[in-house]
Amino acid sequence: MISTAQTSHLDSIGSFLAMEIFSRAQQLEAQGKEIIHLEFGEPDFPPPPEAADAVRKSFENSPAGYTHTQGIEQLRIEIAKKYSDDYGVRITPEQVLVSNGSSLLLFLSVRLLAPPGSEVILTDPSFACYENTIRVAGAEPVLLKLHREDGFQLNVEELRKKVTPKTSAILINSPMNPTGVVFTQDVMKALAELEIPIISDEIYADLSYEDPPCSFLSYSQNTVAIHGFSKYYAMTGWRLGYMITPMAWMSAAARLHQNLMISANEFVQQAGISVLQKSKSYCESMKTELKHHWIFAWKFWKKPESQLLQDVTLDSAQKDTCD
Amino acid sequence: MISTAQTSHLDSIGSFLAMEIFSRAQQLEAQGKEIIHLEFGEPDFPPPPEAADAVRKSFENSPAGYTHTQGIEQLRIEIAKKYSDDYGVRITPEQVLVSNGSSLLLFLSVRLLAPPGSEVILTDPSFACYENTIRVAGAEPVLLKLHREDGFQLNVEELRKKVTPKTSAILINSPMNPTGVVFTQDVMKALAELEIPIISDEIYADLSYEDPPCSFLSYSQNTVAIHGFSKYYAMTGWRLGYMITPMAWMSAAARLHQNLMISANEFVQQAGISVLQKSKSYCESMKTELKHHWIFAWKFWKKPESQLLQDVTLDSAQKDTCD
Repeated sequence: MISTAQTSHLDSIGSFLAMEIFSRAQQLEAQGKEIIHLEFGEPDFPPPPEAADAVRKSFENSPAGYTHTQGIEQLRIEIAKKYSDDYGVRITPEQVLVSNGSSLLLFLSVRLLAPPGSEVILTDPSFACYENTIRVAGAEPVLLKLHREDGFQLNVEELRKKVTPKTSAILINSPMNPTGVVFTQDVMKALAELEIPIISDEIYADLSYEDPPCSFLSYSQNTVAIHGFSKYYAMTGWRLGYMITPMAWMSAAARLHQNLMISANEFVQQAGISVLQKSKSYCESMKTELKHHWIFAWKFWKKPESQLLQDVTLDSAQKDTCD
Repeated sequence: MISTAQTSHLDSIGSFLAMEIFSRAQQLEAQGKEIIHLEFGEPDFPPPPEAADAVRKSFENSPAGYTHTQGIEQLRIEIAKKYSDDYGVRITPEQVLVSNGSSLLLFLSVRLLAPPGSEVILTDPSFACYENTIRVAGAEPVLLKLHREDGFQLNVEELRKKVTPKTSAILINSPMNPTGVVFTQDVMKALAELEIPIISDEIYADLSYEDPPCSFLSYSQNTVAIHGFSKYYAMTGWRLGYMITPMAWMSAAARLHQNLMISANEFVQQAGISVLQKSKSYCESMKTELKHHWIFAWKFWKKPESQLLQDVTLDSAQKDTCD
């Protein structure tokens, strides 16, 4: 009676393979094997010390209860300030919704903008979860191939050919996981001119090593921006992310979030406030170090004997940095 | 261009009204008004002190990273032990999936068992989010009226009439929010005999004041049980919940979770381990106090001048307690 047949309607939802590899690596570690973890985009730095300090202080002040579904107001004020200071984009705290990690907000943003059966265009390659997330939300992923010979830049002319009356949104990620590529200003402008809602995953925005940090909101308000604390603040296991929407979409987004999550962890939100206020210099030092890692890895993999990256094209700025 | 039309496909997804009232109450508090909060099922006790201790210790040991998508193994071992000790149900740690709050797991369980377009039967009244959660998952909620004259017990004969070839699951909650009613053993047995998958929200299982704590898994394995730390452990704002599924369904459940959440907050999981190991006597004392609250509230509302609860029927055990 109980069988996998009951869940076979989910057969098209694949694993997040990095998690599968991580599980297997943990098993091997438990057997005493030494493992070098490369599965995740997980910085090998601890979070800023202000994060744990804020949690300890929160424990002294009050037991953690539910918060506003969009998040503690002070956190949303700090996020709006960050978007202004770091990306030159003006948003209000009422446009911000905080949750336990940006993965859920990727789902929420697709569910928000893409009615079931509609199409969401995404790049190939792209972050491993996108295609699954779109399917979980009941929409259809439409893949746009990125070409190595274009340096994995997005070709907006090719994208135009993928647009149909069923297209409800385009999902982008710049700087991109897994290629590391930052889309050019021309690409961003051309995307904005399509007048199709953009879901912009900006989780790596602050780890752009050549270009100044940028939000797609600089190009268009017709956007749901997704961001979080896992990368630049090295807070992966803390699960704290946020989304920014136009006010016209926030009522529906908040209703989805009330029903799916109620509200994000309170003291983790307090940690978010604290690192936004106090941890910029810590994070910039970490970023400098990560840039050195990148250059080291690049030189290593470029060696003929590594058989990797032999035919990858860099733009001139990237070449200058690595050489 | 940007308008609410883009999200109008979500017009049938209502607010979680308690959150709306909470937001309004917060605004009034900010204006200096004194508010007595009755919106949520939020115990007016702090969590067991072992919870914060575990977080502090976790900060000393390691930076929080991603964990196994089903949760830290030790936490899943403790949850399996709890189900054995408290409910007499044998499960394995491999059947457990931990997430940031049980709300997301309610969605995940519906998405797991109910293909889009299929029907999920739930009671009316029921917890405010259920109907919305089912719609967000793309399934159709089918309401089964509970009657005051039946003491809000579930009538399985009436439920049978709601079953169609499209029925994919039945969602129950015992002890129930908002009625407080515990379904009888006869109701539970009859539900099990339907051989339809049951999603059993057991978040209040440990706050049953008359009957011994019970899991629907005692009656059928054809079940997704949902539980968490918000009520009995008074850890609402911590966001920690879990689900238990048959092994046949766990692969699909884990794939959904990998893509929707990656993994739950690491140090909150450590707190979960700690309270399961150490906080039973603290929680039982709290439960005794909550029972006194219940009796007090009952006597207050039963007064003729309160105009409330005048025609509510109690079973004899409940009457004995309150009188």
